[in-house]
Amino acid sequence: MVSVAVDVMGGDNAPVEPVKGAVNAIASGSDIRVFLCGKKDVIESELKKYQYEPSRVEIVDAPEVIETGEAPVMAIRKKKDSSIVKGLNLVKDGTCDAFVSAGSSGAILVGGQVIVGRIKGVERPPLAPVFPTDKGISLLIDCGANVDARASHLVQFAKMGSIYMEHVLGVKSPKVAILNIGAEEEKGNMLVKETYPLLKNCPEINFIGSVEAREIPEGTADVVVCEAFAGNVALKMYEGVGKTMIGALKETFMTSLRTKLAYMLVKPVLKKTLKRFDATEYGGAPLLGLNGLVVKTHGNATHKEISTSIQQCVTFKEQEINKKINEVINVV
Amino acid sequence: MVSVAVDVMGGDNAPVEPVKGAVNAIASGSDIRVFLCGKKDVIESELKKYQYEPSRVEIVDAPEVIETGEAPVMAIRKKKDSSIVKGLNLVKDGTCDAFVSAGSSGAILVGGQVIVGRIKGVERPPLAPVFPTDKGISLLIDCGANVDARASHLVQFAKMGSIYMEHVLGVKSPKVAILNIGAEEEKGNMLVKETYPLLKNCPEINFIGSVEAREIPEGTADVVVCEAFAGNVALKMYEGVGKTMIGALKETFMTSLRTKLAYMLVKPVLKKTLKRFDATEYGGAPLLGLNGLVVKTHGNATHKEISTSIQQCVTFKEQEINKKINEVINVV
Repeated sequence: MVSVAVDVMGGDNAPVEPVKGAVNAIASGSDIRVFLCGKKDVIESELKKYQYEPSRVEIVDAPEVIETGEAPVMAIRKKKDSSIVKGLNLVKDGTCDAFVSAGSSGAILVGGQVIVGRIKGVERPPLAPVFPTDKGISLLIDCGANVDARASHLVQFAKMGSIYMEHVLGVKSPKVAILNIGAEEEKGNMLVKETYPLLKNCPEINFIGSVEAREIPEGTADVVVCEAFAGNVALKMYEGVGKTMIGALKETFMTSLRTKLAYMLVKPVLKKTLKRFDATEYGGAPLLGLNGLVVKTHGNATHKEISTSIQQCVTFKEQEINKKINEVINVV
Repeated sequence: MVSVAVDVMGGDNAPVEPVKGAVNAIASGSDIRVFLCGKKDVIESELKKYQYEPSRVEIVDAPEVIETGEAPVMAIRKKKDSSIVKGLNLVKDGTCDAFVSAGSSGAILVGGQVIVGRIKGVERPPLAPVFPTDKGISLLIDCGANVDARASHLVQFAKMGSIYMEHVLGVKSPKVAILNIGAEEEKGNMLVKETYPLLKNCPEINFIGSVEAREIPEGTADVVVCEAFAGNVALKMYEGVGKTMIGALKETFMTSLRTKLAYMLVKPVLKKTLKRFDATEYGGAPLLGLNGLVVKTHGNATHKEISTSIQQCVTFKEQEINKKINEVINVV
């Protein structure tokens, strides 16, 4: 049985979608128990909409809410009764194996480190979102947890990302690359130049060299290792261009009767194509290297992403990812 | 009269497109003279295709070619008879006002600094590509000339980018922002945190704060200031996602008879939409802060981009951009 704490108050679609996602996850067949963290009356009223096995659902009253704009450190310290702090504490004290939230990234990242704590030997826990490519999915690690990282951090990111990609997302011997501004080994900034040879000599990963940001959407690498600032820029540019292009495409189809007719004809196939580019199809981003699992979903996550994320927590536990991380980080 | 040296041997479409672009530029009405740098016989044979005013065209024999893969510093030092070195020397000795090339980025960036030289007071010359947004175009500065920049460099980038955007591309009082991973002033890595207050207190620019990469395609800022590594990642991700999505869209329309019919109906409007996202429509990227102008176009530039770039050199000279840069950099 895997126990997952779910933040019912976090994200744009709270509380409806987190509750729906949690209910769907326990109905999926896996041995999952969910701990719904949030305002008790809100959760109870949402749960009335569904049929579910009551022994699989626990309500954890958390009357406070951490807003997206709040300073993370302060919020974690002061709002002890928030859904994020309560959920993270459930992981810390071993009641739950994982915590899934669509709430404030900052609070989740800080809280993950401060409350749940790092695996011994892990210098910094990276945030590793999955995103769609031409060939399937890739993992971008790190995307916002630790700016100004050092080479030793990036090497740990590579190892942890490789384990997650292989054992949770099922990509055999994942290709690991470092995000760079050119293909040659001598290209890059100081950090990349220092990290490159370390990755090259790392027996635990399948290192394929540098990738330029241009190659990321093509799926050249399964795991793209980077410092958080660059990773965040890459990820958000990916999302931004996608949104802008889809917007422009919609306008194009609404131009005239003729284009509207075209839309009707192409709609079923087009929807499938656009779905491929929808990052929310693939579950949230794990914060790796903690004594437990913390998953940050997109702020606009629907029940689908919440449910997928909860189910990935099961694989995470079954595959003993943290044991594997511990072994590869603390290799003698 | 503005004299522009054009690299006939550089880029994927050399020599055909550079020569065509140059001929088109002199036919555009502006007082332009072009110095075509490359293998003499190749240029002569290309020129035979066109009608042009011979007094406006000079052939500069440059039998050597710098390939994209070559180590830039070495290439510049050794291949004195290459089109890039010859073209840059024409700017250095005052024969030409500008040099336009679709060739090796590395060689152009290194050669620009070493041969043409920096304006007194300019610490580093940034590469500033223009790219399309929802609202028009934006300038991303710096995108590859100087990794590991300091805050003082970024302040100069902001000033130079603002001048270029206003006086060459015609955006009145351009909105300048710093590329960041969150909107709040306390967000960012060390470099951004150090640079932010300096930009805020910079009277020469219209600073609007931070932009996330996600907002760049929306056109939130006219000038986006960043360190070259992050800028390069942003730019290449922009290009990569665009390419991948357009590819997927093409496949979608080719799925069946039904979707092919849809394509026929929407084609004229769709072509216009996609053209908006084509960065090559807007001219090349200037390398700013040099004693002259050096413009790097896309490697796959067609005659259109070459011609636009050459015409922007005219505006650059007419608007006395380097005098303006000198004034704002060496302000007492």
